[in-house]
Amino acid sequence: MFTVSSQEQNNNNTRPRVVIVGGGFGGLALAKQLKKAPVDVLLLDKNNYHTFQPLLYQVAIGSVEADSIGFPIRRIFTRHDNFSFNMAEVKTVNTENNTLTTNIGTIHYDYLIIATGSDTNFFGNKEIEHYAMPMKNIPQALNLRSLILQNLETALVTSDQREKFALMTFVVVGGGPTGVELSGALAEMRHLILMKDYHGLSKYDMRVYLVEGKDRLLASMSTQASAKAKEFLTKADVTIYNSAHVESYDGFYLKIDNGKTIKTRNVLWAAGVKGEMPEGIPSESIAKGNRIYVDNINRVKGYENVFAIGDVAAMITDELPNGLPGVAPAAIQQGTALGKNLVRLIKGEQTVPFKYKDKGSLATVGRNKAVADLGKLRFQGFFAWLLWGFVHLLSLAGFSNKTIIFFSWAINYFTKNSDNRLVVRHFNTETRVTEGE
Amino acid sequence: MFTVSSQEQNNNNTRPRVVIVGGGFGGLALAKQLKKAPVDVLLLDKNNYHTFQPLLYQVAIGSVEADSIGFPIRRIFTRHDNFSFNMAEVKTVNTENNTLTTNIGTIHYDYLIIATGSDTNFFGNKEIEHYAMPMKNIPQALNLRSLILQNLETALVTSDQREKFALMTFVVVGGGPTGVELSGALAEMRHLILMKDYHGLSKYDMRVYLVEGKDRLLASMSTQASAKAKEFLTKADVTIYNSAHVESYDGFYLKIDNGKTIKTRNVLWAAGVKGEMPEGIPSESIAKGNRIYVDNINRVKGYENVFAIGDVAAMITDELPNGLPGVAPAAIQQGTALGKNLVRLIKGEQTVPFKYKDKGSLATVGRNKAVADLGKLRFQGFFAWLLWGFVHLLSLAGFSNKTIIFFSWAINYFTKNSDNRLVVRHFNTETRVTEGE
Repeated sequence: MFTVSSQEQNNNNTRPRVVIVGGGFGGLALAKQLKKAPVDVLLLDKNNYHTFQPLLYQVAIGSVEADSIGFPIRRIFTRHDNFSFNMAEVKTVNTENNTLTTNIGTIHYDYLIIATGSDTNFFGNKEIEHYAMPMKNIPQALNLRSLILQNLETALVTSDQREKFALMTFVVVGGGPTGVELSGALAEMRHLILMKDYHGLSKYDMRVYLVEGKDRLLASMSTQASAKAKEFLTKADVTIYNSAHVESYDGFYLKIDNGKTIKTRNVLWAAGVKGEMPEGIPSESIAKGNRIYVDNINRVKGYENVFAIGDVAAMITDELPNGLPGVAPAAIQQGTALGKNLVRLIKGEQTVPFKYKDKGSLATVGRNKAVADLGKLRFQGFFAWLLWGFVHLLSLAGFSNKTIIFFSWAINYFTKNSDNRLVVRHFNTETRVTEGE
Repeated sequence: MFTVSSQEQNNNNTRPRVVIVGGGFGGLALAKQLKKAPVDVLLLDKNNYHTFQPLLYQVAIGSVEADSIGFPIRRIFTRHDNFSFNMAEVKTVNTENNTLTTNIGTIHYDYLIIATGSDTNFFGNKEIEHYAMPMKNIPQALNLRSLILQNLETALVTSDQREKFALMTFVVVGGGPTGVELSGALAEMRHLILMKDYHGLSKYDMRVYLVEGKDRLLASMSTQASAKAKEFLTKADVTIYNSAHVESYDGFYLKIDNGKTIKTRNVLWAAGVKGEMPEGIPSESIAKGNRIYVDNINRVKGYENVFAIGDVAAMITDELPNGLPGVAPAAIQQGTALGKNLVRLIKGEQTVPFKYKDKGSLATVGRNKAVADLGKLRFQGFFAWLLWGFVHLLSLAGFSNKTIIFFSWAINYFTKNSDNRLVVRHFNTETRVTEGE
């Protein structure tokens, strides 16, 4: 098998070939920006769909359907003439001859953009990696959904009270937006759904913990947002441990460095990410968090034609010594800016340094509750929650996904329930993989 | 671990315990019918959700979301006081002491209803079972969706023309409603989507075959419906082989007893079903197609308190020497009737023999095209298609599922496309299982 894409066969002209690795927010923004550019674009992704990561936690909790937060990449570019896509895993970047080694063959590039995003960071702890549940993609969110529902089912038929409580104890590690949203959603499930549908389980037996290493939740937001998120979660009976780090988890006992040990069968890991990238990037280009150092036009240091955008890029400046935040708007802005700069480079024009425009941050904590920092404007509660829903709905790819998420939310809101609590694939708690059929 | 359901703990009264194995159409109808009956109902299913099987093919083809044809069983019975549910696999029926051996412990019953439905019948051919794709549940439909999409992606990067055609050749085996609907949907995908989204593939290279053993399609319907279904499919460029049986399939070559050999990587098996049941049913009670002989009140012959309904039941009469058709209305009617008869039995009243009311049959062949037999009334085309959609929408469990399927259909209809073509889990074509994440 060898790559013969339609683009390649027709590519007897002199248009440079731009290869984008990764169909996340950054990669898509770049490909869209290049629609009319004098280049051929090839986008590669190991999946044939784009994932709307901000709503993964709603898949895990059964609020929305898995398929409605994914969108087929091909559909987005149906009307792009200079675009092609291949489902491929890129193994190695060979900068010496401008090629990629992939599972579908060797692919040549004139310009390469690494937009491979980030993966869960377990900080080297193999035991935690084995037993805790990550949530960075749709299959993982579905695994988490299966685990939560299976453990509630098992709790119903478990007579050992300590084991029953362990099955009903949920510990979310990491108090960033994902951890806050996930623990808020679990608390809501306990409150609204547990005793309604699981006759025989008491909501007083279900416990939700949130463990955060820093001294406040949502550390990237204002102290006001942090305080309010903590207040909302505490009211919803989430036990919050700040300045606390997980020491170990063996599938039964979670040890925290504040002296607490929690017996739990559900550890949800949202405590950090690290850049994910193919092999072949020299070690001197790798920054903290396994990211790639890039200059102010997202070019990888030491190369003329290799770029990185989004979560995998570390654009370190005096103002931002840790680089940009790993959020969708930063990736989208970098993709769009790089699209313009690539055209300038090809035309021999002056490039324009990237400038990040922080449009603000939003995090939801539960029904009617969210926190918002929009520049100097900070507010929390119902309007923040409405704004959160509105922004996320508009950002979703595709009219169909927007419609389905909107109706799912509306129906869940009014029925105070949800229809997506299906164990579509059984998650084997011993082997930690789902079982096929 | 031992079953201690809430129902069991409180069960110090003398209400008999009715245990239903299987949450399909029949099992649900029975449990609903027993809502006010003087019994305790325990429903067991290996899944925590009900599957709306008539739309599985639309999941396989990517038209609707997998989650929207499943519905959590617990939600259906939120307001039933005498109902409990456990997710459990029933391994053996022990009729000598009225218990079930399950993976969550031993469960006692006073009345047992086997409503375990049917599974794909490969007629003992292990090779075909390994390489052909069945489609009887949601994971299998998702596997099929992955296979179809993966093979199209692979076709794009395959330079060997014969292999490329094999990847783009789809053979549906079985010309009943499922096979007709699936081949029609594949033909529609070729016509509407292939060249729009898969630049580089030609619709003239994609082939769809339908192989049926009988001399006409939809053999359970009128000859008029059969003829029209054949006409619709032929117009859509589906090659139909009637009176043809598959001899072998080794993953590459499908041999048919009409002398044809098709090189294909996609064999979709809809050629028959057989009853699925726990162990412990004596062999003299097993009818053709691995079903259980039942009398006219669905009682298993030789037992006082064991019943079978739906696909797994063989209610053989002079008028129906093969038993009832394996369709949802037959299972629902049996469930409802048995619910009434159980109450009569408990009260010592006379039972009423079951009488099947055939409300007619519908099968869709594609956009705007379906066939309908409603008693003497037979019609085909647009109105049959509208009726098909209407009936299926109303039959779906849950307002949310109805809403989401309705909007998915409406959007697909007007955009002539669909958003659910995601390879959410990779199907390994060698091992024939999906790979977890």
